Amino acid sequence: MVSDKGKKSKVAEKVEDDENNAVDITDSELVFSIEKLQEVQDELEKVNEEASDKVLEVEQKYNELRRPVYDKRNEIIKSIPDFWIIAFMSHPAFSALLSEEDHKIFKYMHSLDVEDFEDVKSGYSITFNFRENPYFENTKLTKTFKFLDEGTTKITGTTIKWKEGVDASNGANHEKKGNKRPFAEESIFSWFAETEQKDIAELHDEFNVIFNLKLQVADIIKEDLWPNPLKYFNSEADEEEVSDGDEGDEEENGDDDEEDDS
Amino acid sequence: MVSDKGKKSKVAEKVEDDENNAVDITDSELVFSIEKLQEVQDELEKVNEEASDKVLEVEQKYNELRRPVYDKRNEIIKSIPDFWIIAFMSHPAFSALLSEEDHKIFKYMHSLDVEDFEDVKSGYSITFNFRENPYFENTKLTKTFKFLDEGTTKITGTTIKWKEGVDASNGANHEKKGNKRPFAEESIFSWFAETEQKDIAELHDEFNVIFNLKLQVADIIKEDLWPNPLKYFNSEADEEEVSDGDEGDEEENGDDDEEDDS
Repeated sequence: MVSDKGKKSKVAEKVEDDENNAVDITDSELVFSIEKLQEVQDELEKVNEEASDKVLEVEQKYNELRRPVYDKRNEIIKSIPDFWIIAFMSHPAFSALLSEEDHKIFKYMHSLDVEDFEDVKSGYSITFNFRENPYFENTKLTKTFKFLDEGTTKITGTTIKWKEGVDASNGANHEKKGNKRPFAEESIFSWFAETEQKDIAELHDEFNVIFNLKLQVADIIKEDLWPNPLKYFNSEADEEEVSDGDEGDEEENGDDDEEDDS
Repeated sequence: MVSDKGKKSKVAEKVEDDENNAVDITDSELVFSIEKLQEVQDELEKVNEEASDKVLEVEQKYNELRRPVYDKRNEIIKSIPDFWIIAFMSHPAFSALLSEEDHKIFKYMHSLDVEDFEDVKSGYSITFNFRENPYFENTKLTKTFKFLDEGTTKITGTTIKWKEGVDASNGANHEKKGNKRPFAEESIFSWFAETEQKDIAELHDEFNVIFNLKLQVADIIKEDLWPNPLKYFNSEADEEEVSDGDEGDEEENGDDDEEDDS
């Protein structure tokens, strides 16, 4: 309880100049009321915490139920050539982040995984799994977001071991071939090395659209591509030489709104 | 399933120029895989819906548990003079929205109520309850937000019956008295008449800070003031002649972050 006395005198002062105030109260009554109020507030806090715990329990339970379904989905996707690069290129925001080189590299990606930590609330990881490829030694690239108690996020990413002469992440191998689709200048693979936490609220002040999109890669994957990649794989965008508008996913998207929130 | 054939030929084309693709697949195998994938996706959708329902159930249950605690809190608050105007003036964003006239009017407000609709997800209402006062005939001003199925929100508000010569909402009664605190030009009470839905995403493009804040009134009340008004009532801001920074609630605010998100 902070400075009830100071508060009281201020209140008294305010009440004084209020000719029609229905409430009159003594110092000790005020202190008592504020104490009672604090008790009720603590009671509310307890109910809120219990509610959060219960919601978390539900989320954990359903996360466990989803896991085998995701695994089954990953197996099926492996049998569809170029599934992920097609889905990626059909996502209006994500496709804008891929360089021409990335496009080739993703042909070697056979599965994606997004996994919440076991307690759901403390973080998640995104993993790209690759077949052996001419670009890097790794077969697994993981980026992990760990939510720390103080409200920040600790971000870590796999260090990519580029094969000689093909570090796509510095844009060195970027070839211009007069392709119809405008590719990003910078490779999406540089994202694994970016481990600084950015505040989404800050993004709106920035003018660099690509820079902003880049900071949302994890959200785009976790909230759009991972929940329903088939929606993108099946979407119009890829059928007709992707335009740069975001009309890419018109069909069967009742939940289009989600994309704007992420 | 949209145009599996078209997809297939495109996939085939893509696979063609990929000299190292491990997956080979016939037309019918591809169609089969995509159908299987759709089934798994439907299965996931069902799990997701069940999860949402369960979370909603938890929220409804805890909303019912909170109700009597809120009622008890309202009773206690009634016994503290000027509680709400002090809490309002101590909220950095909300205080910026109050005109000098509003300040006087809120001295007659004895309770606030924020109520979710019974099913929680379909909307909520915010009610300001007033004692008899020299400003308007109403004793109850309510603003209601009803979430419609198509994703929009229907907003309705009480029409304020201003007493003769005192319509604060058009700024007519705004007196300049050289007060230290800068008051808003427009009254917060005009908010009850604003029933057009604005997209929060649009706000960031606007330069008018007050205009932006105004659109967030409901959020400020629902997410900041209603959950813990005592935090604002007790805060430093009011103790030392409110500065116009947002350093107002430094003390005991472990959950300060919430304010920026809302």
